[in-house]
Amino acid sequence: MQQYEIAVLPGDGIGNEVMPEALRVLDVIGAKYGVRFDHCHFDWSCETYRKTGRMMPEDGLDRLRDHHSILLGAVGYPGVPDHISLWGLLIPIRRVFDQYVNLRPVRLLPGVTPPVRDKQPGDIDFWVVRENTEGEYSKLGGRQNEGTDRETVLQTASFTRFGTDRIMRYAFDLARKLGKPHVTSATKSNGIYYSMPFWDERFAEISQEYPEVRVDQDHIDILCARFVMTPERFDVVVASNLFGDILSDLGPGVTGTIGVAPSGNINPEGRYPSTFEPVHGSAPDIAGKGIANPIGQIWSVGMLLDHLGLTEAGADVVTAIEQVLGDPTAPRTPDLGGTATTEDLGKAIAEAI
Amino acid sequence: MQQYEIAVLPGDGIGNEVMPEALRVLDVIGAKYGVRFDHCHFDWSCETYRKTGRMMPEDGLDRLRDHHSILLGAVGYPGVPDHISLWGLLIPIRRVFDQYVNLRPVRLLPGVTPPVRDKQPGDIDFWVVRENTEGEYSKLGGRQNEGTDRETVLQTASFTRFGTDRIMRYAFDLARKLGKPHVTSATKSNGIYYSMPFWDERFAEISQEYPEVRVDQDHIDILCARFVMTPERFDVVVASNLFGDILSDLGPGVTGTIGVAPSGNINPEGRYPSTFEPVHGSAPDIAGKGIANPIGQIWSVGMLLDHLGLTEAGADVVTAIEQVLGDPTAPRTPDLGGTATTEDLGKAIAEAI
Ligand SMILES: CC(C)[C@H](C(=O)O)[C@@H](O)C(=O)O
Ligand SMILES: CC(C)[C@H](C(=O)O)[C@@H](O)C(=O)O
Repeated sequence: MQQYEIAVLPGDGIGNEVMPEALRVLDVIGAKYGVRFDHCHFDWSCETYRKTGRMMPEDGLDRLRDHHSILLGAVGYPGVPDHISLWGLLIPIRRVFDQYVNLRPVRLLPGVTPPVRDKQPGDIDFWVVRENTEGEYSKLGGRQNEGTDRETVLQTASFTRFGTDRIMRYAFDLARKLGKPHVTSATKSNGIYYSMPFWDERFAEISQEYPEVRVDQDHIDILCARFVMTPERFDVVVASNLFGDILSDLGPGVTGTIGVAPSGNINPEGRYPSTFEPVHGSAPDIAGKGIANPIGQIWSVGMLLDHLGLTEAGADVVTAIEQVLGDPTAPRTPDLGGTATTEDLGKAIAEAI
Repeated sequence: MQQYEIAVLPGDGIGNEVMPEALRVLDVIGAKYGVRFDHCHFDWSCETYRKTGRMMPEDGLDRLRDHHSILLGAVGYPGVPDHISLWGLLIPIRRVFDQYVNLRPVRLLPGVTPPVRDKQPGDIDFWVVRENTEGEYSKLGGRQNEGTDRETVLQTASFTRFGTDRIMRYAFDLARKLGKPHVTSATKSNGIYYSMPFWDERFAEISQEYPEVRVDQDHIDILCARFVMTPERFDVVVASNLFGDILSDLGPGVTGTIGVAPSGNINPEGRYPSTFEPVHGSAPDIAGKGIANPIGQIWSVGMLLDHLGLTEAGADVVTAIEQVLGDPTAPRTPDLGGTATTEDLGKAIAEAI
């Protein structure tokens, strides 16, 4: 029997409520395909920080290292500054495990009313490929003359050829694999003087390795506008850490799926575990009520399965989600206009598989 | 008779086609209000660059300095890299003349079908206040090991307390003046380690000077999604140079007004001239055809008048634009679904005033 070790980190807030539904689905898949998933639970969170002054134990990363994959809920809670909670857990995991691809779908789903008009499921269906280990998210920089009128803060983004080339190749390979030979690069080389012209150069260079792939390039400002105006024109969008972060929230915003979209933080070579997590946060406003939508977490399981090579099982999860969402008689959580609980919706999806 | 000196820089592409319509409107306003507008024309552009190797003459900024305002068309053209054309003209003007506010309306207009559903004119009506002289747009940085596998590019953003505080005060003052006591700050302090936590601190501090103003703060990723999902919740949004750039394109993208939105690059103290320009670019694809929509350039005249203190005249221009757009029998350029020329539409607006 195939066996996988999954590290489970529910994190904060609704992370704790949606995770059991994801595990329910994982178990159903395991039974269906005769695969064993062992889950090891870690309660690292802002709660841990409040108790211990650390988001995770000192050997935290080592304890995750030997798992096949990590399933994460949501991190962050009022009272703990975000840059502490995230740089103490989420971001080190991404970086130490070299999860250099952050991958997120932008897809119009049946039964979800998007804020944009005149679009049908099928019209909007693309992927954002975000660089996940360098770029604008950095601890390079500092403050001078703190607390005075002359205070200055510097923040340095760093882009390497190594890091830029590999994310671009991933995007081109994905476009090939999907049979959608079209990649759009997010840039801002008209305003950002060093890094973005370099990004453009690398994009031009790498694209020559993929002569059959059509390329586009848009400045991030107009690209964001185009996500709203003409979302159907995209297939694979490749972007730096910050731009990818923006685009992969904006995309699900346009399709009305921000509460249900998943993401993968992927180490494509499989040298380290990859992390799968919903796009949404810990949602302190509804935490504890049992009404959070579990689909983002469940869809993350779908991406996890796909990453482990269980392609059919991964597709099953997505199909079950689409089936339940498209069925007007199926349970719906309040964010989808219904009155169902997290558990009701999780069970319905598990049954559909 | 009141008299103003306006420096006119049509720039590249359709800049040359929309500018005459803006000047037509300016003349009509002059006649109506008994004000004289002298225009001095400067043909600085990518054409100039191709001929002289510079976007403007060495004493270019000095030649602009004594004007009351600058009316700019669009800068940039294929064949001249953007970071050259812009850092050679647009960006030095913004910086040397300390135009530290970039101000852009996001407004749903009559007669314009937005990509978002279920919104009426009046529902979406807010301003983006963008820091325009520092932040992420900088020439601080460089390349190392160029051309090798070990190539690294650093790009440093700089934020000063001086620059941050003044843009925030401008936003709060604007909220007060508009009678919309609500300011939203764009941040990313969960991912960007030094600059954005600093930005948040300054926002918290400055907001205390305006106890009657309600404040919100969103990370740029979810903020972009909210521009699409709930644009009606915004009144004044304050943002860094890059985030403001993104938001002030995305906003008009949401309202379907990217071809008609104006922007002001403002030195609020009036020590230097301010620049007014449409949001759109030089549009090489339709340049020379006489079909570009002149409304962005004309609305820029409205903002210019307002900045000069000719508030009523400025409001006249906006009213005339709304009137023509709302009139189904009035001329419309192809981007608005009609067959009118740039001149037809310009004349119709001039007549409406
Ligand atoms: C052309 C470019 C440098 C400019 C900017 O990003 O500032 C433009 O997008 C704008 O918003 O005025
Ligand atoms: C929480 C935050 C640091 C994170 C990011 O910006 O990377 C989140 O927005 C995401 O996209 O996963």
